[in-house]
Order: sequence, then C-alpha cells, then structure tokens
Amino acid sequence: MSESYTPSERSRVRRVHQRGHYDRETLHAVLDAGMICHVGYVIDGQPYVTPTIYWRDGDDVYFHGSSASRMLRQVRDGIPVCLTVTHVDALVVARSGFHCSANYRSAMLFGTAVEVTDEAEKDRVLKDFVEGLLPGHWANMRPPTTQEMKGTIVCRMSVEEASAKIRTGPPVDDEEDYALDCWAGELPITTTIGAPVRDPRLPDGITEPDYLASFKLG
Amino acid sequence: MSESYTPSERSRVRRVHQRGHYDRETLHAVLDAGMICHVGYVIDGQPYVTPTIYWRDGDDVYFHGSSASRMLRQVRDGIPVCLTVTHVDALVVARSGFHCSANYRSAMLFGTAVEVTDEAEKDRVLKDFVEGLLPGHWANMRPPTTQEMKGTIVCRMSVEEASAKIRTGPPVDDEEDYALDCWAGELPITTTIGAPVRDPRLPDGITEPDYLASFKLG
Repeated sequence: MSESYTPSERSRVRRVHQRGHYDRETLHAVLDAGMICHVGYVIDGQPYVTPTIYWRDGDDVYFHGSSASRMLRQVRDGIPVCLTVTHVDALVVARSGFHCSANYRSAMLFGTAVEVTDEAEKDRVLKDFVEGLLPGHWANMRPPTTQEMKGTIVCRMSVEEASAKIRTGPPVDDEEDYALDCWAGELPITTTIGAPVRDPRLPDGITEPDYLASFKLG
Repeated sequence: MSESYTPSERSRVRRVHQRGHYDRETLHAVLDAGMICHVGYVIDGQPYVTPTIYWRDGDDVYFHGSSASRMLRQVRDGIPVCLTVTHVDALVVARSGFHCSANYRSAMLFGTAVEVTDEAEKDRVLKDFVEGLLPGHWANMRPPTTQEMKGTIVCRMSVEEASAKIRTGPPVDDEEDYALDCWAGELPITTTIGAPVRDPRLPDGITEPDYLASFKLG
C-alpha cells in the first residue's frame, strides 16, 4: 500500500498548496488528535453537515449512532461522503488584516460509508471505540444488549482520497510591514480535559477509576 | 421578525428531539461561542465540507477568504449551503456503552451564500470581523490595500432555516444500571486561550497591547 493518497481535482489543496499533505502519517495524526468530525452528505441536492464522534482503525474511519439518525440512515448505503476533522491551534495576529490567519490542522476525507452489518465486526469496533477513549471502561460497564446493538448503526468509511492542510508558526507579513509599530504573533488555542464530574446519582463508595486520566484528545 | 425559525423536514431535529432548539437567542449563543464553522456544499453531486472562520451580524453569518478559494468561488453564486458550528463540552461516561455520549452545543444553518460586492459593506464587515476578535487591532494594523480587497471574497449567508442541538448534564442510564459498581459522570472538555506568543521578528520595544486579552471564544 502506498504511503500517500494520490490527490485528484477533488482533494488537491489549491489555496496555499504548500500547506497540503497527502501522506497517511500526517493524515492519521490529524485524525487521531480529535474526537468530533463533520460529515457532509447530500439529500435531493441539499448538503447537510452533521457533527459526530468518529474513530480510526487503520485506513478506515468509523462513526456510529442511533438507528433513528437521519445522517446514518442516509449514508449507510454508500452515498458519497466528505468527512472533515479540524483542530484550531492559534489565532495568528498579523500587521495587516490580509495576513491575519489561524493556525490549524485539518483533514478532509472523500469516500463512501457503508453500514457494518457483520455482528462480530460491529462488536469489535464498538469495543475498540470505547477502549480507545477510556481503556478499561468496557470491562467495568454493563455489556451491550442485543436490543441496544440493533438500535445502533455503525458505519465504516472507506477513504478513496484524502488531504490534510496544516498551518503553523508566526504570521507571514509583507516585508515592509515588519517595520510597523504593531504587535504581531500568535494567540494559542488549546483544548484541555477538566477534572472528572461525578454523576450526582453515583454512590459515595465508587471512586474514580485510573482510566479516567487516560482520556485525551490526541 | 419571529423570535424563532420554523423547522421544516430539512432542519427539524429528529433524533432526541427534546435537544432541538429553533429560537434565535439559543442559535446566536451557539454561533457567538465559536470561530470556526464547517461549510457544506455540493459540486457535481459530491459533498465538500470546508472549515473556515465565520462571524455573525444580526441574523446573517459571514465568512471570507482568498479569491482563489474553491469553496468561496463555488458558494458565492447562491448555491445551497449547510453551515454547522459545534462545541464539545464533555465526554459523558455512562454505565453502559449505549448511554455513553457527549455534551455539546451545535448549530446547523441552511440557506444560500452570496458574495458581498458592495465595497462599503465589504469594508464594514471585514472591520467588524477583526474588531470582533481583537477590538483595537484594526486601528493598530496597516489598513487593507485595494489589491488586498480585490483578492478577498466575503460571503454573506442568509439563513432560511436553522436548528441548534444541545446536550448538557450527567449520563442518563437505564434505571436498573444505577446500582452497578461503575463510575459514571462527565469529563469536561474546555477550550482555553494561552499566553500570547510574540512573532520572533517583533522588535523588543513593542509590548503586548491590552486588546490581546479580550480575545475569547464565546
């Protein structure tokens, strides 16, 4: 398997093309740093963009939800999907509005999603999903019932093409503007995980499991 | 003007409908808490989802970028657009996988975007945009040139329909599962603004302006 996706007109990064990446290592790093993606799909010519939790297994991306979900009921039959993941890392403050920008890492995946109907695969990937977020919680919680599994749709997206786009570093101003008396730099934006909040109905004797500390985004 | 949008089949929240909101106050609060949206549009039946910075003025949402941007060149002519903003507030850890969830606030807007061609409006909304993020920076930085304004497309999205979807609070488990010996609660996810990072090319004498401290998301 090639280390990189081959961009077509659909996935090639046009604007500031030097920010574009097509190799699996870069794409996987962007995907693995997040939890929420935005899935784009079309119904009767109308675009929809639905936020949902996703996870990655090799080159495939999975998402899931209720059997009542409009998004899942539409996309499970293999219609074209665009799945985008975005992390914003900083506001870039430049010496002119034109060069103000954001530092970000994004991945845009093109392909089709199909419903995972094989029960063993569905069991496995749902367990992988929970264990990927909270290693240890699967064994601790109540196992899924047959009815719950029926009420859950899992979709596997096979990625045909993908591109990542990344901007890092300070502003890039016009050379003559560096002499201006104007502050320039970056305002970092960070996502942090706070201290666990107990369910008010949790009995006093149940303490926080160590695996809560392993939850992170990226 | 009505205080609420009237949902059609396109915008009505189906899954867990009690989480759906259609009033302007709730929608504007979700929009005003963010900086990056995901714009969905269709080219030849293929959905695209492009992350971009947005800002709000009344009921209209604006986004902008280079005249070379594929997204802007496509959507500026009034094709259907879905613009989604999502904030993730917590991972919700339940006593069963089925009830594990996320706390989130999202807004999904349907409408069309048109290019702002009136120069006075374009000047005004770009200034509003910069001043909305960093009040004071507009007067401090070098003003835009005619060439830069030509190289920038600003789009105004007129919102035809919109819905917000919000989940808050602890997990909602099956009644009999509350007796289980399993931790449950929330792991809060917070976005924070870090200390300003100076452009390495900034002269020593230029100190941080007070307005940097006013940058916030929401």
